Amino acid sequence: MFYIIGLGLCDEKDITVRGLEKERLEAFYGKDLILADRDMVETESDEILRDADKKDVALLVIPVRVVHNASIMNAIGACGLQLYNFGQTVSLVFFSETWKPDSFYDRIKENADLGMHTLVLLDIKVKEQSEENLARGRKIYEPPRYMSITQAVSQLIEIEELREGGILTPDKTLAIAMSRVGGSEGQERIVSGTLSELLSQPPEVFGEPLHSLVIVGRRLHHLEVEYAETFAVNRESWRSTARDVYGCALD
Amino acid sequence: MFYIIGLGLCDEKDITVRGLEKERLEAFYGKDLILADRDMVETESDEILRDADKKDVALLVIPVRVVHNASIMNAIGACGLQLYNFGQTVSLVFFSETWKPDSFYDRIKENADLGMHTLVLLDIKVKEQSEENLARGRKIYEPPRYMSITQAVSQLIEIEELREGGILTPDKTLAIAMSRVGGSEGQERIVSGTLSELLSQPPEVFGEPLHSLVIVGRRLHHLEVEYAETFAVNRESWRSTARDVYGCALD
Repeated sequence: MFYIIGLGLCDEKDITVRGLEKERLEAFYGKDLILADRDMVETESDEILRDADKKDVALLVIPVRVVHNASIMNAIGACGLQLYNFGQTVSLVFFSETWKPDSFYDRIKENADLGMHTLVLLDIKVKEQSEENLARGRKIYEPPRYMSITQAVSQLIEIEELREGGILTPDKTLAIAMSRVGGSEGQERIVSGTLSELLSQPPEVFGEPLHSLVIVGRRLHHLEVEYAETFAVNRESWRSTARDVYGCALD
Repeated sequence: MFYIIGLGLCDEKDITVRGLEKERLEAFYGKDLILADRDMVETESDEILRDADKKDVALLVIPVRVVHNASIMNAIGACGLQLYNFGQTVSLVFFSETWKPDSFYDRIKENADLGMHTLVLLDIKVKEQSEENLARGRKIYEPPRYMSITQAVSQLIEIEELREGGILTPDKTLAIAMSRVGGSEGQERIVSGTLSELLSQPPEVFGEPLHSLVIVGRRLHHLEVEYAETFAVNRESWRSTARDVYGCALD
């Protein structure tokens, strides 16, 4: 049996009891835990599956069980916006001087045109090789990097200035920054505001990575506005933007 | 402290270790577990929160911690479709002779127009009162009902015939039925096919409730088609519909 066990959002206590039993089973059989990073999964999958293939059956029929767990795709509901009102999720990658992929913009615009919220997942670079080391086949890895809210918002605004779709206007677009969702007190941070307000916050406001960002859509209920207001950089401008720009019926 | 603990998808083993510790804490303090159903949450919230308010502070500042867990919103990925390609989620309620709310159709159409998949959550009626008992204020409850895949597909087709948007055409629309996602072997069922193929299956094919349904969108990768094909009622028609109707590049 080949188990895929969701570890959850934050630390070792986020595993489910069902998942933990599988790990205990593993300890019972005397197998070691091997941390499978992206490089291993992508280039050494044969090695990973070798022991699962005890009975000399083809790879495709090895039994697989998934033990589900929370992910940012549902835990994002902690920001107070209805999960029903989220459209497709997008990823935002680190821009370089020469590479600024902006297809996320089309996806956010599709959501925005329907009034839907967008969850933006921010790039992580863990165990990545530099271009030179990659070209030379040297397995020397760069230090890990996690995209911050500040960098993400800055990249969004950069592409808005290029594309001019009017969907990521710094003073008129509401967003909610989420850090370490589900983490213990002091770890989890939720900060809401216009893009320009989020951009002007000192980095420590957002806490440690991982960070995620929600772009608020116009299909917005006043209860969503009022709940997320509790996390606002500036409650006044949060409400007035929701009312005047988003057209949300507030008192 | 007022804890909201995700219990996960299926049974008591789906709670996380973090969630379990909170329950143990509760046992330690000698509190009873109270099953809070919808009626209780909606009409007796004061009672629920009474003990959380030990320090005589206002309700709004009672500390609340959420212990996240899996939900159908992310576990639906088990069907093989990319979570990135899902649009907004919709709910489908039990139709009656006089009440057939169809706003879900507009939402599915918005998703379909963008090529996105739609997760359709099926109605459950638990501890609901009949209209007569509701009118008379009698707390007598109907037996629980859970919408089946068969009924859901039938309702979708009924509304397609009414609205004629061409997004839920019985022979041309692919869908994936999911039952008891994350459940143990024999519990979880995944069945893929056209709407008419799903409609013609005997009920036992879909197993016990809860059921959920995915309407497949046109932004479809051949790997998604090939993965979901393993659950197909009829592999030939699954592939040919994906290729000829959806325009997916398959061998």
